[in-house]
Amino acid sequence: MSELDNLTSPSIFIGRQGENGIISFGSGQPDLPAPREATEGINLLRHDLRYGLIQGEPDLRMALSKEYPKSTAENFVITNGASEGLDLIFRAIGKGKVLLPRPYYYSYPPIIKLAGMEPVYTELNQGRIDLDDFNRKIDDCVAVLINSPSNPTGRIESIETLKEIEDITRRKGIYVISDEVYKDLIYERENYHIQGDQVITVNSFSKTYAMCGVRVGYLWSSDQSLVNKAIEIKTHTSMNTSLIAQDMALRAMKAPHEYILAQQNIWRERRDLIYKGLCDLGLDLWKPEGAFYVLPKVDKPRELLWTLYKKYNVITYLGEWFGAPDRIRLSYALDKKKIEEGLNRIELALKSL
Amino acid sequence: MSELDNLTSPSIFIGRQGENGIISFGSGQPDLPAPREATEGINLLRHDLRYGLIQGEPDLRMALSKEYPKSTAENFVITNGASEGLDLIFRAIGKGKVLLPRPYYYSYPPIIKLAGMEPVYTELNQGRIDLDDFNRKIDDCVAVLINSPSNPTGRIESIETLKEIEDITRRKGIYVISDEVYKDLIYERENYHIQGDQVITVNSFSKTYAMCGVRVGYLWSSDQSLVNKAIEIKTHTSMNTSLIAQDMALRAMKAPHEYILAQQNIWRERRDLIYKGLCDLGLDLWKPEGAFYVLPKVDKPRELLWTLYKKYNVITYLGEWFGAPDRIRLSYALDKKKIEEGLNRIELALKSL
Repeated sequence: MSELDNLTSPSIFIGRQGENGIISFGSGQPDLPAPREATEGINLLRHDLRYGLIQGEPDLRMALSKEYPKSTAENFVITNGASEGLDLIFRAIGKGKVLLPRPYYYSYPPIIKLAGMEPVYTELNQGRIDLDDFNRKIDDCVAVLINSPSNPTGRIESIETLKEIEDITRRKGIYVISDEVYKDLIYERENYHIQGDQVITVNSFSKTYAMCGVRVGYLWSSDQSLVNKAIEIKTHTSMNTSLIAQDMALRAMKAPHEYILAQQNIWRERRDLIYKGLCDLGLDLWKPEGAFYVLPKVDKPRELLWTLYKKYNVITYLGEWFGAPDRIRLSYALDKKKIEEGLNRIELALKSL
Repeated sequence: MSELDNLTSPSIFIGRQGENGIISFGSGQPDLPAPREATEGINLLRHDLRYGLIQGEPDLRMALSKEYPKSTAENFVITNGASEGLDLIFRAIGKGKVLLPRPYYYSYPPIIKLAGMEPVYTELNQGRIDLDDFNRKIDDCVAVLINSPSNPTGRIESIETLKEIEDITRRKGIYVISDEVYKDLIYERENYHIQGDQVITVNSFSKTYAMCGVRVGYLWSSDQSLVNKAIEIKTHTSMNTSLIAQDMALRAMKAPHEYILAQQNIWRERRDLIYKGLCDLGLDLWKPEGAFYVLPKVDKPRELLWTLYKKYNVITYLGEWFGAPDRIRLSYALDKKKIEEGLNRIELALKSL
């Protein structure tokens, strides 16, 4: 079963929704349309195509600054998605250990290592940060990377936990990198912006506005010297983020708040459906409070994944790619009919093993 | 004169063409329009905005493969400009020394260092590679970075030199990274694609099609394991290059060859004008054979630059940013009237010092 043994990443599964009746619980992107505002009214023929500021277009940064208390446009860098935001920040910090909650988004360890830093893991408890374990491990570290709502757990951290992390890191002078790309996809409460001079927020237009392939994200920090360092690195490694993409991001922000609320309702219904469905199949899983992932515990994850794929035309991701070897990850970024059909097939696969 | 002392990069000069009568010889981008083909016919409202392949859109890579002998779409990675192509390649190689001709494009040393590598310099002779010095220094290196036509010298390497570099590096098993972003801007001959399994070409749509701010470039190599490593890094650090930008690049390739020829004629006329003008002022400089830069030797470059800027409203760049401390760099990416007016002001400034 060498094909299975070699499965160290989801690469063979990407972009295969609907192909030959495949139901994919793999893809980590919204299937819903972007708001009309994102694309309407852009005249490409007349668009300025010359270099823009490396930091990002001033009008977009100005619009973002209104969402961050006591901020100015200077505190932002517009990036090629949140991925580049993370890459720039870790390269700007440049050395030392980074505390990383496990399970984690699969790009985190490589991004940290590529920047010459070293991940140190704190184990999540019920999908949430365990402050005891966190406190035991943080003293060695120069930075913490948190992700609430989390990919792959679907969990959010309580405001108390976030405030305690603010406190600890402020006292100890440790950076907090807060990846909030699912900030508008919380079912339980409003997003809480973690505060402080030691905080760097990384964010994206991809999930909120269903425009993953356009690649616009940003980083925010009130530590201007760190922001400047990120800009300096970006000057050499990619220059300005594509101007058309930035234009679309600015326009997307003009979508009415109902656009976001309507999406949240759809995600909540899907969450309820898949959570109940998997519980009914007897699986052990955490109830998602944000994002669009579930991470059930299963016996023989590799065998299940392969059976689902080969016999039942269902794509899932191995938990091991996210630091959770006894689990599989399912994204519920697909419509309810497909979720129901997928659940039926999962039931058959589980019975067959 | 602390403002002058602190001038370690062109940041204060960027994007200031025409502002309050400023004539900028600073900007390294075409002032000419992109071809209509680049933007015509794109329907943003109906565009797929979901993640694309990290490697880049297949139709764009397929179109590029026709320009590279014995290539397939698999040999390419579409990147956020040539900058990201260089960054990915050096990160993929990851350690060792890189031989770098000096003067160099100012991002080269930081890109090499950010990847954990070390630049070793070979001094250009008359703006061209000196094979004796090159051969003396290459044995220590794992890679060579060449740039013909060159920013900032405007020179091209002879085909004999390029073939000799092919030979040496093939025999010694040393990578050649060939930055050919000015490949369509050669006044003297056709571009020569350096060949071999040890070669990585980095290229861009920015200069050929006057779309710098759109940020589309690519890397090419027949070393598939190196290409795959670059894709793996990009998976974590930025994901796919913006889909709209890739769409524009593919369409730009459909512009008739006359578009490129017409531009070359304009650049040649400007080259002749500025070269003669600066020679007539008694300056010592190399005649550009490609790209759109001249790099004259001047007395007291910092004082001249500052006088030009403060008293004569003319922007130039310090040669020291490019490893040429006794020179200044002028881009002639501006229309002939402005070049003439700029030359008049330079004459006044030189006389005043």
